[in-house]
Amino acid sequence: MVTMTRTPHPESRDAGVRVAVSTVIFSVRRDEHDEPVLSLPLVRRTRDPFDGRWALPGGWLDATEELDTAASRTLAETTGLTPSYLEQLYAFGAVDRSPTRVVSIVYWALLRSDEVDAQVAAHAREGDAPENVEWFDANDLPPLAFDHNDIVEYTLWRLRNKVGYSRIAHGLLPDEFTLADLREVNETILGKRLDPANFRRQVDTSDTLIPTERFRTGSHRPARLYRYNRDVELADRGPLPSRH
Amino acid sequence: MVTMTRTPHPESRDAGVRVAVSTVIFSVRRDEHDEPVLSLPLVRRTRDPFDGRWALPGGWLDATEELDTAASRTLAETTGLTPSYLEQLYAFGAVDRSPTRVVSIVYWALLRSDEVDAQVAAHAREGDAPENVEWFDANDLPPLAFDHNDIVEYTLWRLRNKVGYSRIAHGLLPDEFTLADLREVNETILGKRLDPANFRRQVDTSDTLIPTERFRTGSHRPARLYRYNRDVELADRGPLPSRH
Repeated sequence: MVTMTRTPHPESRDAGVRVAVSTVIFSVRRDEHDEPVLSLPLVRRTRDPFDGRWALPGGWLDATEELDTAASRTLAETTGLTPSYLEQLYAFGAVDRSPTRVVSIVYWALLRSDEVDAQVAAHAREGDAPENVEWFDANDLPPLAFDHNDIVEYTLWRLRNKVGYSRIAHGLLPDEFTLADLREVNETILGKRLDPANFRRQVDTSDTLIPTERFRTGSHRPARLYRYNRDVELADRGPLPSRH
Repeated sequence: MVTMTRTPHPESRDAGVRVAVSTVIFSVRRDEHDEPVLSLPLVRRTRDPFDGRWALPGGWLDATEELDTAASRTLAETTGLTPSYLEQLYAFGAVDRSPTRVVSIVYWALLRSDEVDAQVAAHAREGDAPENVEWFDANDLPPLAFDHNDIVEYTLWRLRNKVGYSRIAHGLLPDEFTLADLREVNETILGKRLDPANFRRQVDTSDTLIPTERFRTGSHRPARLYRYNRDVELADRGPLPSRH
C-alpha cells in the first residue's frame, strides 16, 4: 500500500535535523608494561548535554564544507591529530541519541604511534597542545556521551572484520616492518594471539607484502623487513571524490 | 597545528544543511528474451532541480523518524515497494551535488522478482499504483538527477564485492532454489559467467547452504532444491538497533 501516513509539511520536514561529524581514530600505543594496546583519543565535554563525559572528537558540519574535510578539521581542532588514513564508517541517526535531532556521519581513522608521538610533541613545542584530550584503551572505555560507546563498539567490529581481508593494518605500521610487527598489530586489533607459522604462511600466499633486502638487528636474530605492495588498495575508501 | 581557521558561528554552522534519504533497490528481472537483468526502479522528477530526469526513490528525513524508517517510507511512497532486505550504504554529502546543501543517507535494498510482481499487481488492483516509476537496467542508465549515477555505480561495486563473501544473493531468491538459480543471480550481479563445477565446489565447501529433500522437475533432469542456513548472517546490517 502506498499510503501517505503523515501530512506533508515541505518546509518543516527537515526542521531540527542537524548534521555532525565524529571520528574514531585508532593507534596502537604501549602501556606501562610495554604491551600494545588498541587506543583512541577522547575529548572531555565542557558543556551540556553530557557535561564532563568523554566523547569522540567531532563537531558540526559546515554548510560549505565536504564531509571528510569536516571530519579532518574537527579532529584537528579537538585533538591536534592528522591521521594517515580516514574512511567514512556509518551515519548514526537514532532519534533518541541526543536531546536534539542530530545525524552524525562517523569516520574512522588510523595513525601510527610514532606519528601520534611526533604530532603531540610538535603541539607541546608550539604551546598549542589541545586541552581535555586523553587516550583510552578501546576495549575498556568509561560510559561516554551520547551513543558513542555503541559507535566505538561498531567501529571495533568493522576493524576486526577488515584486518581479515584488507591491508588495513598498514595504517598502524611504519613503511618497513617485520612480520612480527605486523602480527602484533593484527593480534592487538583482534584481541587474541595468532600462530606465528600460520601467520607467515598466510602472508606468503597473499600478494600484499613485498620483502626488502633490509633486516632489523638487535637482541634477537635478524628479522627481514617488509613493505606493503602499493598496488593493492588499502580498503574501501568510499566513492572516489573525482566522481563528484 | 591546531588552528581555528574559521570564525565559529555556533548558531549558523549547520544552517542550510538538510538530510535526505535515498534507496537503491535491486531486483533480477527478465527482459524480452527471458534473460536475467539486474534492475532498479527510478522515479521521474516533476519539479526543479532536474525536472524530468530520473532519480533514486527517496525524500526528506523527518525530524522524528529513524533513518531506516525514512528509507522504507520514502521508498513505499514513491515506488510502492517493500523490500526484503535494507541496509545503510553510505552518506553522500559533496557540497556541489545539489543546488542547496543536502546530505543524502543512501540505503540499498533487495527484492525478489516474484515479490516485485506481487506488489505491483496488488497496487494495480487497489488503484493506487505509483506514478512516474520505471525499472531500468542497472548497468545501462540514462543521466540521472544529482549524483545518482555515481551512487548507483558505487552501490553496484559494493554489491559485487558482497556476493563474494556473504549470502547477499539470498535477498534475490525464493526460500528454496537450485544451484543453477543461485549461480544465475551471482552471474547477473557480477556481469559474467561462472563455471558451474567450480561454483558447486565453492558452495559445497561453505556452510551457507542446506540441501533439502525436494527437487525441481521439468524439461531438464531433476535439480535439488537448497535453502540458506539461517545461522549465517545475511550481511553487515549496521549496528544493532537494540544498542541504541
